[in-house]
Formats: sequence, structure tokens, C-alpha cells
Amino acid sequence: MTSPLDVVIRVDAAGVCRTDLHIVEGQWAEKSGVELPYIIGHENAGTVVATGDAVTNVREGDKVILHPLVTCGLCRACRDGDDVHCENSLFPGINTDGGMAEYLRTGARSVVKLDESLEPAAVAALADAGLTAYHAVRKAIPLLHAGSHAVVIGAGGLGHIGLQTLLALTPAEITIVDRSEQALAHATELGAHHVVAATGDHVEQVRDLTGGRGAHVVFDFVGEHGTEAEGVSLTRDAGSYYVIGYGGAVNIPTIDIISREISVVGNLVGSYNDLDELMTLAARGKVTLRTKTYSLDEVDTALDDLDEGRLPGGRAILVPSR
Amino acid sequence: MTSPLDVVIRVDAAGVCRTDLHIVEGQWAEKSGVELPYIIGHENAGTVVATGDAVTNVREGDKVILHPLVTCGLCRACRDGDDVHCENSLFPGINTDGGMAEYLRTGARSVVKLDESLEPAAVAALADAGLTAYHAVRKAIPLLHAGSHAVVIGAGGLGHIGLQTLLALTPAEITIVDRSEQALAHATELGAHHVVAATGDHVEQVRDLTGGRGAHVVFDFVGEHGTEAEGVSLTRDAGSYYVIGYGGAVNIPTIDIISREISVVGNLVGSYNDLDELMTLAARGKVTLRTKTYSLDEVDTALDDLDEGRLPGGRAILVPSR
Amino acid sequence: MTSPLDVVIRVDAAGVCRTDLHIVEGQWAEKSGVELPYIIGHENAGTVVATGDAVTNVREGDKVILHPLVTCGLCRACRDGDDVHCENSLFPGINTDGGMAEYLRTGARSVVKLDESLEPAAVAALADAGLTAYHAVRKAIPLLHAGSHAVVIGAGGLGHIGLQTLLALTPAEITIVDRSEQALAHATELGAHHVVAATGDHVEQVRDLTGGRGAHVVFDFVGEHGTEAEGVSLTRDAGSYYVIGYGGAVNIPTIDIISREISVVGNLVGSYNDLDELMTLAARGKVTLRTKTYSLDEVDTALDDLDEGRLPGGRAILVPSR
Amino acid sequence: MTSPLDVVIRVDAAGVCRTDLHIVEGQWAEKSGVELPYIIGHENAGTVVATGDAVTNVREGDKVILHPLVTCGLCRACRDGDDVHCENSLFPGINTDGGMAEYLRTGARSVVKLDESLEPAAVAALADAGLTAYHAVRKAIPLLHAGSHAVVIGAGGLGHIGLQTLLALTPAEITIVDRSEQALAHATELGAHHVVAATGDHVEQVRDLTGGRGAHVVFDFVGEHGTEAEGVSLTRDAGSYYVIGYGGAVNIPTIDIISREISVVGNLVGSYNDLDELMTLAARGKVTLRTKTYSLDEVDTALDDLDEGRLPGGRAILVPSR
Repeated sequence: MTSPLDVVIRVDAAGVCRTDLHIVEGQWAEKSGVELPYIIGHENAGTVVATGDAVTNVREGDKVILHPLVTCGLCRACRDGDDVHCENSLFPGINTDGGMAEYLRTGARSVVKLDESLEPAAVAALADAGLTAYHAVRKAIPLLHAGSHAVVIGAGGLGHIGLQTLLALTPAEITIVDRSEQALAHATELGAHHVVAATGDHVEQVRDLTGGRGAHVVFDFVGEHGTEAEGVSLTRDAGSYYVIGYGGAVNIPTIDIISREISVVGNLVGSYNDLDELMTLAARGKVTLRTKTYSLDEVDTALDDLDEGRLPGGRAILVPSR
Repeated sequence: MTSPLDVVIRVDAAGVCRTDLHIVEGQWAEKSGVELPYIIGHENAGTVVATGDAVTNVREGDKVILHPLVTCGLCRACRDGDDVHCENSLFPGINTDGGMAEYLRTGARSVVKLDESLEPAAVAALADAGLTAYHAVRKAIPLLHAGSHAVVIGAGGLGHIGLQTLLALTPAEITIVDRSEQALAHATELGAHHVVAATGDHVEQVRDLTGGRGAHVVFDFVGEHGTEAEGVSLTRDAGSYYVIGYGGAVNIPTIDIISREISVVGNLVGSYNDLDELMTLAARGKVTLRTKTYSLDEVDTALDDLDEGRLPGGRAILVPSR
Repeated sequence: MTSPLDVVIRVDAAGVCRTDLHIVEGQWAEKSGVELPYIIGHENAGTVVATGDAVTNVREGDKVILHPLVTCGLCRACRDGDDVHCENSLFPGINTDGGMAEYLRTGARSVVKLDESLEPAAVAALADAGLTAYHAVRKAIPLLHAGSHAVVIGAGGLGHIGLQTLLALTPAEITIVDRSEQALAHATELGAHHVVAATGDHVEQVRDLTGGRGAHVVFDFVGEHGTEAEGVSLTRDAGSYYVIGYGGAVNIPTIDIISREISVVGNLVGSYNDLDELMTLAARGKVTLRTKTYSLDEVDTALDDLDEGRLPGGRAILVPSR
Repeated sequence: MTSPLDVVIRVDAAGVCRTDLHIVEGQWAEKSGVELPYIIGHENAGTVVATGDAVTNVREGDKVILHPLVTCGLCRACRDGDDVHCENSLFPGINTDGGMAEYLRTGARSVVKLDESLEPAAVAALADAGLTAYHAVRKAIPLLHAGSHAVVIGAGGLGHIGLQTLLALTPAEITIVDRSEQALAHATELGAHHVVAATGDHVEQVRDLTGGRGAHVVFDFVGEHGTEAEGVSLTRDAGSYYVIGYGGAVNIPTIDIISREISVVGNLVGSYNDLDELMTLAARGKVTLRTKTYSLDEVDTALDDLDEGRLPGGRAILVPSR
């Protein structure tokens, strides 16, 4: 314990994320400034085993999912539902020890109690990937009235959570674009109104599906390899292009931004309250994940499977054996 | 210290409020459930003299104003900018020891650092009375476009802060109604666009000033003696009647509520962030108070002066001598 | 034609509403100021047969549902999505000739084109009753996050549209209260999460279902016979009591309004855009009505059936024979 | 007259705008598709001289300012306060005959009646340039609480209206950046809290003024020559970069958009209701313009003066002689 607000959990499940690959490759070395060795893993769920003196919201034995950040609760952002922009946050698994371990120390402000119906291994991957998708969709609710169009570019790990969230929170007509037939089939199963294979003339196909005018909101879960320009082009006048995936760049002449009066909206992971809401949807069966379980010792296999595309549409979850 | 998040302040100024009279009279005995003896005083400002181990936002020597509640920072409301509805709050001066004393214990989540230009004695009364008025006006911002009408009933302790806040935050056309000529003169000085003496035909006068249709928002800082009905009657169709003062009752046939599609909106004290914003306005000279200073020993005189109307338009402030 | 913006429709379906009974009984005589004889009927759908010179949005042969008001399009309200508060509106069936007839004159601003899948007789009753329920729920969207509670008092003609709209637009947990076992069974079928029979201890039952704290939003589709007090009591602190039904009165001490910081929100019929959105939900099968068809000659039978409770949970629709 | 909703005005004042230069140079030829010859002039105010049969909101002799678009009033956008995105609009002076003439035909939906205190020549230039600045600031109101920072890049024709609107509608702390000392002096006079000359290290200076974190909202009235990158860089995390000026391009890696969770927001001209609100501010003296008057015959001189920078901080207004 380093603070009376600390909470220690026994890790029951740690999601494996593409960001973990990037960390291992060294892409985050400079940005995080972390010293080696350290423990990765930022999608964690488990059981509370110890709490600091000032902790009042959980007790030993509680099953919890962890918000990815440890936040201060004192700055304006923390008080205003925007704890992701906490002025004093830590990010376990990125810039301090994370959850690919037996135990993890986090803060009282980061633990969301799980409904009895939810198992840590089933929801851990919602802690970051799912939460990001949820957050983007939730921000867009005021823009998505009945009769509006939402386009989702990329129906993989995040995108298919975005789809399920759109269905749960809005009456929008939803079109999914992806290169993978398997992802599109899954999207149809989940309830997408239209699916379009990204095979060349997909932009025109999507435009037609939106009455020739484009979508009120385009959610881009890819954010590279040209989806940036396609996403902007598929945004209707006065509409919004939501960026969630990354790797590329958005490049738009200012005359187009103003004459079409469009918005480009960045999206980071969601807030604690967002995560609490997402767990409500999960408990009701409105948001589900496909997962594959590995023991903690198999972490390298899990990372390899992810890296080499052997987990299409699913998430790898590490479960420490006991 | 009872918690690592405690902050102890030396009280430099404690506002005297009508609620203090009600407490002394016993009206709050049952509601607060407090045990006697205890210390009243819920509008406090001072200097930090000690902090618990988990406190990171203030240090010894900081001049601060205190949000009236001590909140948990962990419940949904606290995380969402609505700490006033914290599920685990204390209210020093109401249900635990308050600030009419040399020292006061509060929490790290309740201290707002003061700008160098602000003196505790000058702003203490904004901690509760002023904060309530600020909060009500801030909630109404989306309803008050240029060309809209705001009516303020009661330009006393809270109302004249409401007026100054309206001028600072909105372009609304503002009409003040009060029985006191002195209060109306002060309102005019502060920048009210119209003032109307509450002498019988004031409802008709105000209606005329709003083009015969009533106000987009009526702020009722009285809430008794008939202002409830007048306030509703002066609310235009699709408008809002904001209740801040209390003592009476709102009684409206449901057919009027629906056929006029009006809203009746309750207003409690503001959030921590609201108080921080109000201090910004105070530091810029946009919100000022008339105060009369008493030593801590003179508390009974201060309460008597308030009770017997010897403080028109001003606030009594207790300043411990050192 | 009296204006180049006139549209004449052949009436294909006219809903029979409780307000029609009140008109026949004379309750609206003074309020509407209409001269006898005139034609009632304010829930109309049909086919365009003629259009004025300035009409550009429909043409002869279009199937349409009619917004209940004929509005000016020039006042601030009309331009701002609030055409219900148009400063120059007419209300066919209330203060001018309505739709219980072969033909009806309305305005270009009042006609919503129907999706091919929708029949006038199936949707006519959504034009007023359904639109009111839709409007109330739509206003409440920002208050109803995942994990929030909505309570619906009264699951009859309007209430069961409110329920379907809540399910389509929000992730709220929904509790229905009604006296009729049949209405509750229907609500369960439509997807209500909880139903409670209004048989004495229902307020306590509902409070328990909301974790002891009451609902974030209570929708009162009754508004008389005591539901007003029950609805306020079931509203959680910082929550909202939405009034839709009428006949009684809301009576709340101002101290309760402010200490609980609750809002009482009136709700009238929805806007044109609301009706357009509701038709989108209807076309997707998200909102359905139970109807019983009568010929235009059978209007008296229809009114009697409604008056004497022979249409539980259903709506009478007049269909002119051709 | 071509429609019963037509309104003919005698032009009393027509603003000369940089867009007029671009039209004369041929830059708009393709985009507008207009046939030559035609009349330019899209910032118009005058007196109503004739009205079509369906016009109910103005009469002969009314002094009016003209919203730049002629809109249909029937599409979703027109009904929803967003008439700028009307699906069937005309733009007099751009794609049909405009106001540099004795008379101009417009529509009933485009005329805003002027307060008696306002002269057409004093406000005409607010019809497009001023309205654009007003619209951008109005959209940003929810983002600009007391204590927030607004940065205005470019304090020329639009920017200084933006500054005045910020002061009238928000409590934000305002920093102005411009290359012209004269423009900065004018900004200070109007009430800007800080002014910074764009002479090299201005980005660092502005960053310091915002506590090192950048602004909650950056309003870029230039939109070219590098302000695009500077504006993005001066936007704080979770903040917004509002684009109003144009000519350049916004180019941001998607990783920056998401990791900083910023929004890029396009801004076109404001709505009819926006213009009505702006006229309210003008009538109250909250928004003023510097103008130089020319007779209609002197149009070429006015265009030359504008082109050659002989109107710093002011607007050329054509006034037909009578």
C-alpha cells in the first residue's frame, strides 16, 4: 500500500490488446517513460483482497473490473465525469505495473463492482477496448435520432462493441464496413441493418445506403490505410466523423470543413461512469464478447496468436491458474 | 484527523445565514439529527493549517473557501459534476461541527483555493448563499439566448448574486421584482434592465415587460407568500419556473402543466466546480457582496441583526480575532 | 384552398380519442372558441389529393400522416424544432374542421410522408396520442443512461407507446405501474423489465425495484386520482417527474422541490420532426398499436365503445368506405 | 414575384465582402454554377416594398436585415434551427441575383425585422460576416465556463465580432492573436483580456497565458498560412479547434486526435434565429461595426479599397442614393 485509497486485487482475468504488442515492440518506450522491467496488462478484472484505510466503496471479496486509469478525484476533470483527463493519473500496464500478474494494486476510484451474473474472464476485455467503443457511441447519442444514419468502419475488437452499443443506446440505422467477410457475418448476426464489404466501391455503396448524403456520424475504428479520407467523405454535411482507430492522419482543406460544417471528433477511453454503464449492458446481455482463454504462463502464445491474426473477432484473456 | 483526506483550516471568515436562525430556533433538529451541543456555520473561508496523508491538492498556508459539503468522490454523482447529491456526504454546520469557531475540519474534496486578489471575509458568504444562486443561473444558460427574458423574484442576499451571475453568463433581458425600494435601487446599480416594485399590479407590469408572454425563466428566490403562483403565472409557455427560495408550496393543475408545457425546476446549492467558477467571477469583480464584519464573540449580535432586518442587502461575516 | 401552402387529403383513417368525448360533452367549448357545427378528428392519415401553388414537399397520391397542428413556419418556435409552440397555429379537429370526414384541408408543414410499409389505418392514432408519448420520452433521453430507472404510471393508450419508445431510444430499466392486469400483461409482452399492479402498496414495491431511491424519471400518463403525489414520491433526488396525463394537480412544498432538487416537467404533443421519427420506429416495427376499425358512419358506436371501456389497450379508427 | 412567399425589399445597404472579390476573380464560377451577368451582394438590409400572398410576418415599410439564404421551411434542417443546411436553399449574391442593386427579391423566411434603434447601413455587414462569427461562438457556449480559456486567431472583420460575442455570451478568459497592432489595439479597446502579436513566439506566449495547457476552444478566423497547425497546437486536451477562416488545410495524425481527444469543428454562417439574436445584441450596443459608406456607383472603389487593404478593421457598405 502506498496510499490509504489503494485497493489490491487478485487478478482473475487480464485482456491481451494490440497495444501490448506495440509496447513489447518498444513503440511506447519514450511516450510512457516507464523503466524496465515492468508488468503490462491494462484490461483487468479480479477480486478485492486488501483495501487502504480511506476506501469505502469496496471490500475484500468483491468481484470487480478495473477502470484502466488510477485518478485523483480532486481535479476539475475528475469531478466532471471526465476522469480520463485527470491531471494526475496513472495508467497501470502502460506507465506502471499492470495486470498480467497474480495481483495488482489500483485505486478506490478505479474499481467497478461486477453484477453477480458477470464473470471477470468474460468482461475483462471491456475494460479498455470495449470502453473506448462505448464512450464514442455514448458521446454521439444526441446526434443519432430515429431516422439518422451511423456508419461503422471496422467491425473487429472495438467495432463490434460499438455496433452492440449503438443498438442498445440509439435508434440509428447502422451500416458496417469491413474487409473481413467473417466480421461482416458476425455484424449481421448482432443486428447490423446493412453490411458492406470494403472491396473497392464500398464508399459509393454506403453513400447509396444513406440516401446519397452520407451518415450523421461515421465511427472510424481503423483510422489508417485510407479510412480517414473515406470516413470524411461519408460524413454528411453538418455531420460528424468520430476517430477511434489510429495510425494514419486526417487531412482536410479548411474550405471543406467550413462549407460542409463537419466536425472531426477524437475519442479516447471512457470514464468510470461509462464503464459502470457498460457493465449494466453486459449484465443484461446487450454487449457480449468472444474470448479465448490462456493461462498466465501462455502469455507469449496469446501475444503471438493476436499478432498473427489467429483471433479474428475474439479477444485473448489471460487467467492465472490457482 | 479522522481520515487521510482530512484538511484542517483556521477559520478566517464565517458567513451568517438565515438557516442559522432556523437551526437556533430548532426547525432543523429532526431533519439534521445532530446531537447538541455542536457548532453552526456553513459559509466558511480560511487558511489551511494541516492536511491528511492522502491530500494532494492544497498545502499548509493556502487560502481557501469551503464547499459546504464534504463528499466521498466515489459515487456516481460525485464523479459526474453533481457532488451535491453525493450518497455519503456530511454538511458541516448543519449535521456536524461547522465554522463559527477558530478551526474547522473538512475534506480535501471541499477546498477551493482562492485567487490572491480575494480575501476570505469578502467571499465567505458566497460559499452557500451565493453558490445556490450561481448554480440556478448556470443550469438555465441553455434556456437564455439573446432576446430571452429572465425574471428574478427577490433581490436580497441570494437574488442579487443571481442577478450578477445572469449578467456575467447570459445575454438575457433581466427584470427584478422586489418589495424593497432599496433592493431595487441596488439591482439597477448592478445592471438590471428593469425593476418592478411588488406593490400589487407587478405581475401585470412584468408581463408587459416580457411582451405579454411571460419569461423564458423565472427565478424565484422567495418561494413563499404567493410568489409561487406569481412565478408560475409569469412563466411563458414552454418556459421554466426555477424554485430557489422556500417556505410555501407549488400547486398547479396538471392540465396547465401539460397544456403550457412548463417545467418547475428545484435548485439546491451548487457543485464544487460551480464554486470554483464563482470564485473566478469574484476575482474578476463580476460578483461582489456587501458585508458587515463582526468578531466571533459578537455572533449573537450578528444573528439578531439578521433576524431583525438590520442588514438589508448585506451579509454578516464573523471574523475570529487573532 | 385558402393559402398557397394548403394541402387537401382524402382521409383514410381518423383515430378516436378521449379528447373527442370531452369535446362532445362540451368541455372544450370555451377554450377552443369554435363555432358549431364543425367536424372533430385530430388523429388523421390519408392520401394527398390537391396541393397549393407553394407546396413543394408532397404531391398528389402521397400517403401521409398529419401532424395535429397547422403551423406558420416563420416564428422562432417553428424554426427551432418546437413548432408545437407556433405563435400562429391552428388545431384541426379542435378549433377548426378536423378529420372525421371524407376530406381534410391541412398545410404543407403538417404532412409526413409514410413509408411504403405503413398503412394509414395502422398509424393514424400515433398522430396525437402516440406523438405525445414519444415526445415525452425523447425529451428525457439525456437523463436515462444505462443503469438508470424509468417508471411509467399508466400503460394504456399513451403509456404503452411510451414503453415501446423507451425500449427503442434508451437503455433504462423500466417499471410499469397500472391498475389493469391486462395492461400489465401487455407491457410484459412488449418488454417491460418490471410490472407492478396499482393495488395499494405499489409505491413501496416500485421504490424497492429502484434500489430504494426512486426513478431518474417518472412518466405519469394518468396525472390524476393521486398519481401526482405518487409520481413525485417515486422521483429520486435530482430526478424528474414528467407529467403527460391530466385532470388532477401537482402540489409540492417548495422546501421539498429545492431540498430534493427535483424537476416537474410538462409534456404536450411532439413536433413535426418527432412525428417523422416516430414513423421511422413504426416502419421498423418498434412501435405498434392495437386498433379496431369502424366505418365513418359508425362514429357514434366508436365513441360509445371508448366511453364505456370496450377498447382496453386498443384504439378506435374510423375508415371512410369507398 | 415567383412565389406567394416572396418579399421584395428596397436595398438600403449592401455590405462588401472578401467573397465578392473572389466571385469577381472567377473562383466561384464552377461552384455556384451561376449564369452571367448577375448581381452580387449577400449582406443586405433594406425596407420591405412588396410581399407575396402567403407572407404574414412583415409588411410594406418594415426595416429588415436579410438572412443570406432563402430557405424552404419544410425540410428537417429548416424545422430544427439549422436552416443553413436547408435541402432546397438559394443564396442571393452567390448563385442568384443579390443586393448590390436598388431592389432585391428574397423570401418571407429570410427577413429579420430591425429594432427601431438600428439603421440598415450600420448592421448590413452583420448579415453574413458577423453572423458567421456569432454562430461559431454560440455553438461553443457549453464549452466555455467561467475559468475557461478562449483563443481567437485573427481579429479582423469576423474576429472582432467573435470577440464581442464571446464577451456578451460567455465568461471565458479571451486571448486575441493577430499580426496587426491596430487590430490588437482595437481588441483591447473592445475588452479582450489578453492580446498577443503574431510575431514568432506567439504560440508559446498564448500557451503560457492558458496555464501551459492551451485553450478550451480556439476560434481560427484565418484558417490558412499556418494558423491551422498553431490552432490545433493551442487546443488543450479534450478541447475544440473551431475552424471559421479558410484557405489552408487541417492535417493531424489520428493518434494525436484520439490521444488528446480533441475536436475539429467546422463553422458556416448562422441560422435565422442566430441572426435575430445577433440583432438583439446590436440593438443593445453589445456588437458594433466600423463601416465606411459608398454610393452604389462607387462599387468598384469599394472593392478596390477592400482588395488593397485600405479598410483595416472596417467594412465597406454600399448605400444606393435616392
